[in-house]
Amino acid sequence: MKAPALAADELTRLLTAEFPQVWSHESGLSIENVWFGGCQLRQAFRDRSLRPGATISGATIMALGDYAVYVALLGSIGWEPLAVTTSLNINFLRKPGCVDLLADCELIKIGKRLVIGEVMIREGGEDGPVAHLTSTYSIPPRP
Amino acid sequence: MKAPALAADELTRLLTAEFPQVWSHESGLSIENVWFGGCQLRQAFRDRSLRPGATISGATIMALGDYAVYVALLGSIGWEPLAVTTSLNINFLRKPGCVDLLADCELIKIGKRLVIGEVMIREGGEDGPVAHLTSTYSIPPRP
Amino acid sequence: MKAPALAADELTRLLTAEFPQVWSHESGLSIENVWFGGCQLRQAFRDRSLRPGATISGATIMALGDYAVYVALLGSIGWEPLAVTTSLNINFLRKPGCVDLLADCELIKIGKRLVIGEVMIREGGEDGPVAHLTSTYSIPPRP
Amino acid sequence: MKAPALAADELTRLLTAEFPQVWSHESGLSIENVWFGGCQLRQAFRDRSLRPGATISGATIMALGDYAVYVALLGSIGWEPLAVTTSLNINFLRKPGCVDLLADCELIKIGKRLVIGEVMIREGGEDGPVAHLTSTYSIPPRP
Repeated sequence: MKAPALAADELTRLLTAEFPQVWSHESGLSIENVWFGGCQLRQAFRDRSLRPGATISGATIMALGDYAVYVALLGSIGWEPLAVTTSLNINFLRKPGCVDLLADCELIKIGKRLVIGEVMIREGGEDGPVAHLTSTYSIPPRP
Repeated sequence: MKAPALAADELTRLLTAEFPQVWSHESGLSIENVWFGGCQLRQAFRDRSLRPGATISGATIMALGDYAVYVALLGSIGWEPLAVTTSLNINFLRKPGCVDLLADCELIKIGKRLVIGEVMIREGGEDGPVAHLTSTYSIPPRP
Repeated sequence: MKAPALAADELTRLLTAEFPQVWSHESGLSIENVWFGGCQLRQAFRDRSLRPGATISGATIMALGDYAVYVALLGSIGWEPLAVTTSLNINFLRKPGCVDLLADCELIKIGKRLVIGEVMIREGGEDGPVAHLTSTYSIPPRP
Repeated sequence: MKAPALAADELTRLLTAEFPQVWSHESGLSIENVWFGGCQLRQAFRDRSLRPGATISGATIMALGDYAVYVALLGSIGWEPLAVTTSLNINFLRKPGCVDLLADCELIKIGKRLVIGEVMIREGGEDGPVAHLTSTYSIPPRP
């Protein structure tokens, strides 16, 4: 794996400072690994992620996937916190249990204006996929 | 507008009891209106929805859209809380300011197994759309 | 309806000249109406659109929807034939019979770089929708 | 790679008989390889696939991706020609030149009712991806 533009601990420090609504201890999100072109995030299980059926809400899973592409982008092109999602598509494959989730992201396009990532989300400790997502980010032009 | 299977106040009562992680006063989500085939939800602005750029996070907007299809489904076919999202697609059209968001949902398919909804999200008090979303729910078979 | 930048007959003339692979009598595609912000296309039934099950192939329906956004774009911002699709999402709602299809397109974003359209496809003479699609086009920068 | 339920030559024979609108010599589509859980298709370059900009039309690329999931499904669960697409999402990554395209499909869910595939499309002889697609098929219930 090629070295990232920003390492996991540096990214965590920057995100905690700039985006504390999501990157705080309370949210349960953490960067397991980051490299040029991809990353792995973990979403620790939280009671507040529950939905009827003793499973994790789709909103939690979508957010995890979207943040995975954001982290892979920042880890690949450097600190561009104003990059924003322009579109996202997700297929839910199987209802997860009440456990941690892992998101494995691979960028399939790294352009000057657009970055597109693909993410497979699965239960920690399991092989079976929970959801598959693609998401496009737009990078604001440099002034 | 055709009368819903469940009115807004009844739906709010049931959701608050069964899905308190999302349907609580704290979340800022509320049902403005519901009818057979659609609904309107409001997401009150919350500091915790902020993301870099003084705008509302994509995760907040996606969740709002997804819940709008869930409420329209429940309001149209009755209380099926175990219905789950099978796929979702969203296009972000414009970054919203730090204001309430409104989600207008119309169901485009009401089948026995699948319900598909289309949602336009905009800033409260404004006409310009913020995001457009389609989402498919699967209804569990009756035993 | 606001007047288009290019009227239907002018658009048909230009498309037939520049994009004859699709805009020929043989293809069965035609512009029923175009206005600023939208259009209606017709896909005449063709035997070559059939697929197993005596229905029209998904590929035919997707192409119709994608071309509808292209025509609405050209009719709204003028002749930009090098505009290209960057993403497309479609939900198939019901299998059509062996009949003409109509595509009603409304643009939901008309930006300088991106145009996003939403399309409902239905059988000619029927109300029930066959498919719903959103598609994003990128407009090449002017030199 | 695990053996498919139907080998490439058998699939080609069946598809040519049942779906001649697409699976004929004229269309330029062929099965390069099929295994349990995936396949590779080739779309030979055809003049009729051209669009303005000396590139291949999005409709051609979408159709190739959709057929790849169909072939992977048939190769994995056996002859179910009435399986139909229920949704499809595609991101176009780069405009291809006037060359053959290859579609590599991997199924990410093989359920009783739904099959979901992911497809990367690239130019034959090149590594750079042209488009990435996910598509869901519904399998009709056995009577």
